[in-house]
Amino acid sequence: MNLLDIKDPTFLKNLNENELKELADEIRLFLVNSISKTGGHLSSNLGVVELTIALHYCFNSPNDKLLFDVGHQSYTHKILTGRARDFDKLRKIDGISGFQRRSESIYDCFEAGHSSTALSIGLGMAIARDLNHDDYEIIPIVGDASMSSGLSLEALNQIGDLKSKLIIIFNDNNMSISKNKGSLTKAFAYLRSSSKYVNLKEDLKDYLSKIKEGKKYLNFLKGVRDSIKSKLINDGIFKEFDIDYLGPVDGHDIGALIKAFNAAKQKDGPIVIHVVTKKGKGYEYAENDTNGKWHGVSPFDISTGLPLKTLPENHLSYSKIVSNHINDLMEINQDIVAITPAMISGSQLEDLFKKHPERCFDCGIAEDHAVDFAVGLALENKRPFVSIYSSFLQRAYDQINHDVCRMNLPVVFGIDRAGIVGEDGSSHQGVFDISLLNALPNMVIAQGKDANEIKNLFDLAFNSNYPFAIRYPRGHILDTKYKKEEILLGKWEIIVNNDNEDAIIISYGNDVCQIEKHIKSEKLNYTLVNARFIKPIDEDLLLKLASKNKPIFIYTNEIIKGGIGDSILELFNISNIKVPLHILGIDDIYVKHGEMSKVKESLHLDLENLYNYIKENA
Amino acid sequence: MNLLDIKDPTFLKNLNENELKELADEIRLFLVNSISKTGGHLSSNLGVVELTIALHYCFNSPNDKLLFDVGHQSYTHKILTGRARDFDKLRKIDGISGFQRRSESIYDCFEAGHSSTALSIGLGMAIARDLNHDDYEIIPIVGDASMSSGLSLEALNQIGDLKSKLIIIFNDNNMSISKNKGSLTKAFAYLRSSSKYVNLKEDLKDYLSKIKEGKKYLNFLKGVRDSIKSKLINDGIFKEFDIDYLGPVDGHDIGALIKAFNAAKQKDGPIVIHVVTKKGKGYEYAENDTNGKWHGVSPFDISTGLPLKTLPENHLSYSKIVSNHINDLMEINQDIVAITPAMISGSQLEDLFKKHPERCFDCGIAEDHAVDFAVGLALENKRPFVSIYSSFLQRAYDQINHDVCRMNLPVVFGIDRAGIVGEDGSSHQGVFDISLLNALPNMVIAQGKDANEIKNLFDLAFNSNYPFAIRYPRGHILDTKYKKEEILLGKWEIIVNNDNEDAIIISYGNDVCQIEKHIKSEKLNYTLVNARFIKPIDEDLLLKLASKNKPIFIYTNEIIKGGIGDSILELFNISNIKVPLHILGIDDIYVKHGEMSKVKESLHLDLENLYNYIKENA
Repeated sequence: MNLLDIKDPTFLKNLNENELKELADEIRLFLVNSISKTGGHLSSNLGVVELTIALHYCFNSPNDKLLFDVGHQSYTHKILTGRARDFDKLRKIDGISGFQRRSESIYDCFEAGHSSTALSIGLGMAIARDLNHDDYEIIPIVGDASMSSGLSLEALNQIGDLKSKLIIIFNDNNMSISKNKGSLTKAFAYLRSSSKYVNLKEDLKDYLSKIKEGKKYLNFLKGVRDSIKSKLINDGIFKEFDIDYLGPVDGHDIGALIKAFNAAKQKDGPIVIHVVTKKGKGYEYAENDTNGKWHGVSPFDISTGLPLKTLPENHLSYSKIVSNHINDLMEINQDIVAITPAMISGSQLEDLFKKHPERCFDCGIAEDHAVDFAVGLALENKRPFVSIYSSFLQRAYDQINHDVCRMNLPVVFGIDRAGIVGEDGSSHQGVFDISLLNALPNMVIAQGKDANEIKNLFDLAFNSNYPFAIRYPRGHILDTKYKKEEILLGKWEIIVNNDNEDAIIISYGNDVCQIEKHIKSEKLNYTLVNARFIKPIDEDLLLKLASKNKPIFIYTNEIIKGGIGDSILELFNISNIKVPLHILGIDDIYVKHGEMSKVKESLHLDLENLYNYIKENA
Repeated sequence: MNLLDIKDPTFLKNLNENELKELADEIRLFLVNSISKTGGHLSSNLGVVELTIALHYCFNSPNDKLLFDVGHQSYTHKILTGRARDFDKLRKIDGISGFQRRSESIYDCFEAGHSSTALSIGLGMAIARDLNHDDYEIIPIVGDASMSSGLSLEALNQIGDLKSKLIIIFNDNNMSISKNKGSLTKAFAYLRSSSKYVNLKEDLKDYLSKIKEGKKYLNFLKGVRDSIKSKLINDGIFKEFDIDYLGPVDGHDIGALIKAFNAAKQKDGPIVIHVVTKKGKGYEYAENDTNGKWHGVSPFDISTGLPLKTLPENHLSYSKIVSNHINDLMEINQDIVAITPAMISGSQLEDLFKKHPERCFDCGIAEDHAVDFAVGLALENKRPFVSIYSSFLQRAYDQINHDVCRMNLPVVFGIDRAGIVGEDGSSHQGVFDISLLNALPNMVIAQGKDANEIKNLFDLAFNSNYPFAIRYPRGHILDTKYKKEEILLGKWEIIVNNDNEDAIIISYGNDVCQIEKHIKSEKLNYTLVNARFIKPIDEDLLLKLASKNKPIFIYTNEIIKGGIGDSILELFNISNIKVPLHILGIDDIYVKHGEMSKVKESLHLDLENLYNYIKENA
């Protein structure tokens, strides 16, 4: 069938098992083809093709609610709900999102992007349904890595207590983005490898053959815990939460999935259906991936598996530049310990973990725990380095405030994906971290303009005795040989100095270098300042600059409120300075997905716009 | 013995079991006496007297690290480490803190205030110790309510994986502040009530009689999981995390505790010792308390259990005023659902929970889950009310941002304990929430000046379609009969209007009423504005006020960065307004503990200081 013709999932109900399998093959082909052109999340989507088909076959979305935890594995769901024809603009500006989005489809009942929210939100929906005496199914689909995160475990704790009906699909591939960590992995593996795996299908077949005697079947399921729980119910981790468990089920066997879902429908209260899937299923390169390389990909050649674009010569991703430098520092300083919350692959820490296995820790999807783990290390005089995406750092705000900053501990944060990230959209934009950290006593926030300044900022951080956050964006820059530079804490740098200038530009990060090139090539009479410390700001320099009485332009890519602009406004206000100050940044809105450059354009934050704005206002 | 003479815990080692019991009685008497005068945390401290004595008897603090999770149960620890004589200034300004504090004693190895950090931090300390090839014990003491919170569960997940030695004291009283919630409560109860309880002591006695054959004992413990685990190790929830378990132990039997701790010392890897204690033990009123009334108390009469001070006539706590009004609203609007993260007692929600049990939910110490639970309700058109302390809201920042605000859902937050709280100190001051929420798109932040305005703001909130946060402080005010008022979203109120005034004062909350009284009684030529919406600010009114070209004083009790002052600075900057603006608030520091009025004085934020400041600067 032509996937582009699908309008809604009702057609599925008329297909037999073989046709459903054929559909799965077609979808898989479509996904590999389509993502090879646009980029996107590949492995997780290939893993849930049959699962998603079976869900839409058994349940009636949008009446029944499918909550894909995180949401980046919802591509098959999008295809089955009439969005296949939009895949050429997947994750592009004005195109469809890579996550569930309510404004996009009535079949998207919630939105995510960060992990582990589906159980808590699903429980809230279930209670609402019960209070309304309504009758429909709520089905959170949660991966095993998400399942071990604290938010999910808290939700399980209340789900088992309240006993409202929820059909929880436990999508177990024993991978988060890369290999899972934590002792619960063992508990899951125990369930997965239990002898009940094979029996399940047989048992269900027996009972399903009697399905016309619906009541009997229902009774069987109601009594299942007590009567024959040894057959179907495994007393594992979910029992501790007092939640029924069914599984494991082969996640690529549509027939088995359908049987399990139909069984679950008949049951009262919450039930976990353990579905074992293979990430990357059906595309060899992705299937054999063990370190998460195929989790999120840029456009690639299907036959070779190689990316279509490679980095320019001598360029490296910011993540890799930081990772390499941390490696160098760890060689010298035996006290440095590196920590990541499940982002070894995303932050390119593979080599670091290989070279210093005893001092590198993957805490799993548990940002709050990762930061407090660092706190413990710092209290015992180690020098923890916490590598964390800007938007995921939001999950550890209280630990950064209550534990790191309040005790004034020298934890070094490498804030990856800071600023606008582009295609992943509003949940992933790294635009709030400055507002968060800026209000915290003791915290230092810095951002380097190029590879060497980034490295030197990390040198400074590990030689300082306070919480120290160094931001770096998504993307790549020229890597250069390390050269020692003296950077004084809180001191900014004048990059271009013009007397009697028309305007003073203050910015941070690599934009400073781009602006410098522009000023020089266009021979503009501007002064340019590298605000490499966002907190503390360089008050002395600012007062000197202000005394020139020239318009000052502050160029940022973050939420304005609470940012560097506000800090400068406060200083000027206290110092009774009245120079014209222009703060460019993100106003009070969420930033949508799209190519990074196009997103910046849509926000009027591209450099071209900056230059025009200065011309008009200088 | 005289507790005031204790210098350090070494004296304990020379006491026999009977003397240790006598000491426990003395400490209990001291605690009741002392707290009856100063106020403080009573029940939790009475519960851990024997436990703390046994810990200091068996371990060598400060070399061995005692981490009291939350920390409000560390009073006996403070007494045993030479601080009994400081209890007359407990929680007072310049006195000792009600929590562990590093600057106070070498025996305080970390600081907390929010729950569930001790396991993550303890694991970090353990890994640091191992990397240093050092040899000492790390002992987190964690309550059962803290143990079910996501942060603790994440820590257990990595503790079971890394296998570093940790002696985890699971202090199980089946209470958080009030009664525990969640299905894990059952898992804990199962362990508690297991038949092994009685046997444990006998088993240990048997083995301890052979303690001189140390090696044999060691071997026994090493092999314990496999060989005789049925005797000592219960296959409960901790097994799922692959962590050994010992218990339950009677937490008021010093002898049993000592044996258990000595046994745990000999074991490699992490172990949980399950200690069953009774909150409030030894003081009848506290012991019989089931709803948390005796958790934190103000000074009271020991013989009657009644508080020494009662509220002025017709006064109610802010919490109670809000709770009563929510009750009224719930009577009218069947869609309102109330949610608290374990703060039924603190936020005085008891009556609400009694009157609307089917629409009131205690999510346990799980702020992040509580907010996402509300998200689910809102998605299904319920009107959730989340009652949450300002400082604990920090734990749900990402859910408020990523889920509530990003989906623009009408969740109403009642932010209790907003502003300076006083005695609980830096971990509990509600001074960051505005900075956090102000940077979030779609969010409304409001604060009412008196009981009636608070009620009307809630009316508005439940009739609005966006995230809506209403702050109210610790303390009490006059409650008045509800009178309907028309409040327009984002519109401020001029309380005192003077033409050609000397100064314009902008503030929010009950301070506005205090300032009004002062202006009127002193016949001052000031204009006073009630900024009842902190976000959005009333731009029209501000521009009108600014056009008067008079100095404007913004009086707040929160962190300045990211607060209302910054919002006004941004507006005036964009509008090219140059009037003198004075922002009073908390600069870049953590606010220490002490009586609320004295803390404000120390920050120069008392009203007297405001009046003087205006006089000098108007």
